[in-house]
Amino acid sequence: MRASAESNGGGADDDAAQVMGDGRHARHVTLKDVAELAGVSVSTVSLVMNEKKNARIAVKTQERVNRAIRELHYRPNALAQNLVTGTSKFIGLLTDSIATTPFAGQIIHGAQDRAWKQGYVLLIVNTEGNEDIERQAIRMFLEYKVHGILYSTWYHHEITLPQSLKDMNTVLVNCYSDTENLISVVPDEFNGGRTAAKMLLEQGHRRVAFINTTVESPARTGRLAGYRRALAEQGIAEDPSLIVDAEPTQEGGRAVAEVIRASGATGVCCHNDRVAMGLYDALRNRGIMVPSDISVVGFDDQEVIAAHMLPPLSTVALPHYELGASGVDAVLAPPVHLDDHRVLIACPAVHRESISALD
Amino acid sequence: MRASAESNGGGADDDAAQVMGDGRHARHVTLKDVAELAGVSVSTVSLVMNEKKNARIAVKTQERVNRAIRELHYRPNALAQNLVTGTSKFIGLLTDSIATTPFAGQIIHGAQDRAWKQGYVLLIVNTEGNEDIERQAIRMFLEYKVHGILYSTWYHHEITLPQSLKDMNTVLVNCYSDTENLISVVPDEFNGGRTAAKMLLEQGHRRVAFINTTVESPARTGRLAGYRRALAEQGIAEDPSLIVDAEPTQEGGRAVAEVIRASGATGVCCHNDRVAMGLYDALRNRGIMVPSDISVVGFDDQEVIAAHMLPPLSTVALPHYELGASGVDAVLAPPVHLDDHRVLIACPAVHRESISALD
Repeated sequence: MRASAESNGGGADDDAAQVMGDGRHARHVTLKDVAELAGVSVSTVSLVMNEKKNARIAVKTQERVNRAIRELHYRPNALAQNLVTGTSKFIGLLTDSIATTPFAGQIIHGAQDRAWKQGYVLLIVNTEGNEDIERQAIRMFLEYKVHGILYSTWYHHEITLPQSLKDMNTVLVNCYSDTENLISVVPDEFNGGRTAAKMLLEQGHRRVAFINTTVESPARTGRLAGYRRALAEQGIAEDPSLIVDAEPTQEGGRAVAEVIRASGATGVCCHNDRVAMGLYDALRNRGIMVPSDISVVGFDDQEVIAAHMLPPLSTVALPHYELGASGVDAVLAPPVHLDDHRVLIACPAVHRESISALD
Repeated sequence: MRASAESNGGGADDDAAQVMGDGRHARHVTLKDVAELAGVSVSTVSLVMNEKKNARIAVKTQERVNRAIRELHYRPNALAQNLVTGTSKFIGLLTDSIATTPFAGQIIHGAQDRAWKQGYVLLIVNTEGNEDIERQAIRMFLEYKVHGILYSTWYHHEITLPQSLKDMNTVLVNCYSDTENLISVVPDEFNGGRTAAKMLLEQGHRRVAFINTTVESPARTGRLAGYRRALAEQGIAEDPSLIVDAEPTQEGGRAVAEVIRASGATGVCCHNDRVAMGLYDALRNRGIMVPSDISVVGFDDQEVIAAHMLPPLSTVALPHYELGASGVDAVLAPPVHLDDHRVLIACPAVHRESISALD
């Protein structure tokens, strides 16, 4: 390959040649290289490559082209294939900051796995909310003829859709827009909250506190509604003093520890694992032990935290991997008959050691 | 656009047509559509598009083609451009599992940011160590004519390079191979360990413990050597009883808490933030407070943990973002005059509240 590359220093390849200057990296072989070696035109090579039977190319010419292809190790070109079909094997993934948000990287993972299995490759752009990058990214996706676009955010909330995505095959992941008719793949917050409360209720707890987030979001309203449903299903009257708001961080959990202690709750649903982690610390400083003195349930099942707390945290998983995978499914084959354009992904219970049974 | 798409139901577009079946998503306009509208051949359109002055196409024909391009909203096609130059604006990123490892997702972030600034797009494949996927991914990268490949692992260790990457413009990120001459962009473990120890020594600590990882790696050997250097620079004799091994998790930190307490250390360097988190818990259960009774330094500066511990953890950052960004730099312009083919990325001190000054 090197020899042929060196004999072909075309101007268009200056850029490539520069990177490969140390001799280790061979230049990509082009159709033109094959055509020159075979002594035919580029279109002839192209016709032979694409096996157009009706092109009536002499068998000898075909053999010459095929020999040149083998000699030069020319590879079938996905870009050329995409050009011919006018579509591509790309799916664009536009994110605000999920690549930088630890647990939500699983959205990328799920999308990439599923796309790969379907023969597609993800083009990922992380905009950090910068509208300029967003516009450029969308233009790039169009230029690469992506098959569809996943637009994803790191936490579940409403978005304003960029204008240029409106006419595309766009699926929203972990976000939604009530003004658009686009499919949204989102966590089932209601049943997630219900599951968290049930994990405590099923162990005999009747006084169950609920630490909600201060951030307005479907997680805030949906999980609270699910908690209320779970209480109602057990015939337990709601006690407003058991519902408190906190910042969704370790600091938030620590800040409400005293309120939780004073409430007489025997169990508490935390908005997320980080809140549970802060609550653990502040309770321990007060000599209150989990789960013997109080039971705790988290939310998220955040890697490197939930399974490794003392005691390991029982929690409800945010299904990030599944959000990404289902997003790709929706791009490739849009589901029909959806309520409110939503594909709801279940948030499953993860049982560990932070819940004790009450008699 | 829809009208033109509907009048052009070519077989090659079945796949695209299916996804766009709900009428919201317009089919991509192809060169063929333009050619048909202009009443010329596809090659003529291509020649006009590429402004080949020597093609001597009649001005009237050129105008007809340009009018068709405008009418159909045909977009300049990055794929076509890549085909013409034989290279592309893609960089491949092959990872073992960094997309699924919370903090290392910053490698993707750094690589994506830097690539984007240079006009490149990342193609990311996460192999989870599966050699079959790895082979397919590399073949895909070749088909898309990537400009170069980043091969990255989630923690810094030696790898066996896939055979097919040897002849490519490959840069290793967060890993290395002593049998290959490839450039490796890796964290400067030695100076990272030295920095951690210095954070304690500079506050007057003389008995500084070192909790090392049990995992054989450059982090294990490099950071310990850096710790030793920092002690030597202060004229402090090494005390082997202050160096202990632990699993690099919260559980590991808890397991060695008693040894650390008994050692009489006034400060301790932890292999990572998770070890520090476990150590915090176990020390607190023994009534030992950080930092008044003992000072603690972590490593990694892991998001959602380090800054939110009680007290917030002073630590040394693993520069994942910078590893990804520098990897892209090395793919686009290989640095020369490297020692041992290594580009070392600094691990900076992050000062918080887990260190107290000794008199």
